[in-house]
Amino acid sequence: MSALERALAEWREALGEPHVITEPDALAEAETATFATSQRIPAILRPASTEEVRASLRIAQAHGIPVYPVSSGRNWGYGSRVPPSDGCALMELGRMNRILGHDERLAYLTVEPGVTFRQAHAWLRAQGSRLFITTIGGSADASLIGNALERGDGRGPHADIFQHVCGLEVVLPTGEHLETGHARFAGSRTAPLFRWGVGPSLDGLFSQSSLGVVTRMTFWLARKQPYLREFFCAVPDEAQLFERVDRLQELALDGTLRGSFFFWNDLKAFSVARQYPFAETHGRTPLPAWALEQFREGLGGRWAISGALHAPDAELGAVLERRLLAALDGLPRPVRLGPIPSEGESPFQGVPSDANLTMAYWRKRSPRPEAPHPDRDRCGFIWCSVAVPFTGEEARRAVDLAERIPRLFGLEPNLALLTHSPRCLYLVLALAYDRDVRGEDARAQACYQALSRELAGAGYYPTRLGLQSAGDTLAVTDDSLAVLQRIKSAVDPSGILAPGRYALTPPRDT
Amino acid sequence: MSALERALAEWREALGEPHVITEPDALAEAETATFATSQRIPAILRPASTEEVRASLRIAQAHGIPVYPVSSGRNWGYGSRVPPSDGCALMELGRMNRILGHDERLAYLTVEPGVTFRQAHAWLRAQGSRLFITTIGGSADASLIGNALERGDGRGPHADIFQHVCGLEVVLPTGEHLETGHARFAGSRTAPLFRWGVGPSLDGLFSQSSLGVVTRMTFWLARKQPYLREFFCAVPDEAQLFERVDRLQELALDGTLRGSFFFWNDLKAFSVARQYPFAETHGRTPLPAWALEQFREGLGGRWAISGALHAPDAELGAVLERRLLAALDGLPRPVRLGPIPSEGESPFQGVPSDANLTMAYWRKRSPRPEAPHPDRDRCGFIWCSVAVPFTGEEARRAVDLAERIPRLFGLEPNLALLTHSPRCLYLVLALAYDRDVRGEDARAQACYQALSRELAGAGYYPTRLGLQSAGDTLAVTDDSLAVLQRIKSAVDPSGILAPGRYALTPPRDT
Repeated sequence: MSALERALAEWREALGEPHVITEPDALAEAETATFATSQRIPAILRPASTEEVRASLRIAQAHGIPVYPVSSGRNWGYGSRVPPSDGCALMELGRMNRILGHDERLAYLTVEPGVTFRQAHAWLRAQGSRLFITTIGGSADASLIGNALERGDGRGPHADIFQHVCGLEVVLPTGEHLETGHARFAGSRTAPLFRWGVGPSLDGLFSQSSLGVVTRMTFWLARKQPYLREFFCAVPDEAQLFERVDRLQELALDGTLRGSFFFWNDLKAFSVARQYPFAETHGRTPLPAWALEQFREGLGGRWAISGALHAPDAELGAVLERRLLAALDGLPRPVRLGPIPSEGESPFQGVPSDANLTMAYWRKRSPRPEAPHPDRDRCGFIWCSVAVPFTGEEARRAVDLAERIPRLFGLEPNLALLTHSPRCLYLVLALAYDRDVRGEDARAQACYQALSRELAGAGYYPTRLGLQSAGDTLAVTDDSLAVLQRIKSAVDPSGILAPGRYALTPPRDT
Repeated sequence: MSALERALAEWREALGEPHVITEPDALAEAETATFATSQRIPAILRPASTEEVRASLRIAQAHGIPVYPVSSGRNWGYGSRVPPSDGCALMELGRMNRILGHDERLAYLTVEPGVTFRQAHAWLRAQGSRLFITTIGGSADASLIGNALERGDGRGPHADIFQHVCGLEVVLPTGEHLETGHARFAGSRTAPLFRWGVGPSLDGLFSQSSLGVVTRMTFWLARKQPYLREFFCAVPDEAQLFERVDRLQELALDGTLRGSFFFWNDLKAFSVARQYPFAETHGRTPLPAWALEQFREGLGGRWAISGALHAPDAELGAVLERRLLAALDGLPRPVRLGPIPSEGESPFQGVPSDANLTMAYWRKRSPRPEAPHPDRDRCGFIWCSVAVPFTGEEARRAVDLAERIPRLFGLEPNLALLTHSPRCLYLVLALAYDRDVRGEDARAQACYQALSRELAGAGYYPTRLGLQSAGDTLAVTDDSLAVLQRIKSAVDPSGILAPGRYALTPPRDT
């Protein structure tokens, strides 16, 4: 028996036959992302508890079989469920989908990795909760924990999601069990409330990493606000955009705007509103100027600014609204600023939505299905996200680069600036294409590489990496690679957890 | 020549003669804290640059001499400059006191470890900055970096100081050089703006730890607000206090109160206002009930609530003020709520102050000097800080314990509840005594141990540890001690940096 066969036998023993999957169809699905990948998966493990995760990893270690953990596997645009190295067993944590704790007054929710945004929202609503969990732009079926560990960005006051979590339970590749913060002490009253604990703070180590499997996390919730107004504002030309970036940065810094807000370019708005106009363009790509111009007329401009104002009462809200309107004053189109249609039902107050997934179907000739699944539907979709200083000047410099490059590869520059903090924007680009068109996988991958190289060359470095960056090396000026490698060895002496993820191994010679 | 002698010779070579201090008087001073300690220091090293820190640590490693780094050494109440282990060379970073970066629009300040709160405040004022750095309750001559690494608490909107920093430059015990966040990439534009970087986030590892010497850090600054009102409110009895804890937690959660605020008991207010009334009590300790009663009459109650409201304009401020007054309504004494005497000159907007240091002199019979220095003046002073859920009920339970125990040891229960977040309070106790009174050192140490044991037994665990906790063990329920030990070995293979600090070595058998 090979090492893998021995491991499979033990995993079956530990998890039960039905939860160790080796059917070729299931494996092929799991090996499929929204761009070209070549990694093969020998088995899918579906543990149901922290104890089963520990047992699975001990078996993996004993037999030297690498394991790649995913929560719900909706990492679309970053590699979906596909492991960065060949031959990893996929550990799917979807069966661990319990909500373990909730406190209405202290505003938190403790969950397992299988809990999704859709599930958490429905659960809180069923409780009649006055609280909400931040939503994301991606799938409503994404995992809270998976998203937070990738340091995803959301909507509302807790947009920097990983900044608003604590109390991680982590299983190390050795099978050891770790609690971060005060949870490691018996009977602690502050485990879900206080992130630092005492001694070195370890939470950050387990984000964007291959150092442990997080099996529990607490999310701090925000209070639904009696006053909530979404705003939307078209910006006719780019010069006006960058001036507004500066004005709105002021409002973020002084606390008028406490939630995240967004700057979308025309192509992003277009590709969320509808798929590529193949009929009108007679099947020609990339998008001709006249077609974009037509869409712009409907949108009212080159860019759109959107966000939400929220306040604990109407009086306060009215004052904030005046401040915001002053900052947006002078834009030719009227600002839409009004109460949310259905009481409080806004993505800025936790209502998840799959609306943005239309983007992934942009270049598909088949219509977007009721239940979108970009992996299955051979959507071509690659995210590129970098950090940019929150000034109009820096935004202009980064946007200029980012708008130019996709066109060189026959793709549309779908991009947005998201407010990460009053100091920093995320510039996110989506490369959308059709995997059924020959050569497009390679072209999109080449485009991603050119984009990330050019952006890094201009000083804009990634906020998140996916499989599309495998093999790329970001040159570092310090000893971090060697140090991370030693920490990795200390935590994962057999190197079995997610090898190759986030460059914890030194880059190959290039 | 002994290993130490060889190291001393090399340190003198690397740093220059005057910066390797072995004079017995200087060493004796550095071996003195505000409570009994026995650790001896063979030398004080005073590097002037990151390169000199690297050289010093390489020498230490080559000769196996442990090193204990301090920034400015004002860790009063937690052990001052005294290392947790005997025989450590003390590395004082006070010569590295440059301000390395500042951006008015993006609101940050980048500093070396010798930069103090007093210096940063004066520097920003000299620039005419509209920004401020959070102040602390402790000495104005404390180091920004030293305080942040201990995860100190401050006043104002960035009260959780370590949550508002990024871009650490760290020298590892091996002499290796690490940059956290995006600073490790050449030409990054977001190094001082974006904390996460890409890959595992390492900042937390270097707080409350012995894993590296931080030689640079960026602090995010808050904007001075045109509307600023300090408030102060006496609370006649404890039942009223705990009801107000609940009401104010609501205001913190809904965003009305965005800065920290404080609940001080009578004894804390007393000991900040003046020293122990030895004359009135004819030298008797602890404080008789009648003397405390007398003080309470002046204060107006058993407790006092204080904080500040701030807003970007007066209109917004007025609305916030109404909300706050409604929450404080019903307290018999009028709330003081007014503009700051000198325009914007408030500790809630960055003005550092040594006022609270009077506490350390509480039981001294000599008056508090113009330039207080509790180590030198043989003040007995020990902090005990634990985390408590932010509810009236939990606060009552923790306060009951904390008020009872010091009295059993003949000490006054000087305590405060500080708002760490809308979910968590710090309960901080100060044990103040006179080191010149025989037996008091031992009594205070015993009191600290009883306090921390009883509080932990009730589920309230420390937020910060000092030398007073050496040898105590907090029982953990997970594998964190073994894992931390392996990380320590990976980063500090010779074990030369701050051995014994924050229990990174497994506890001794007890």
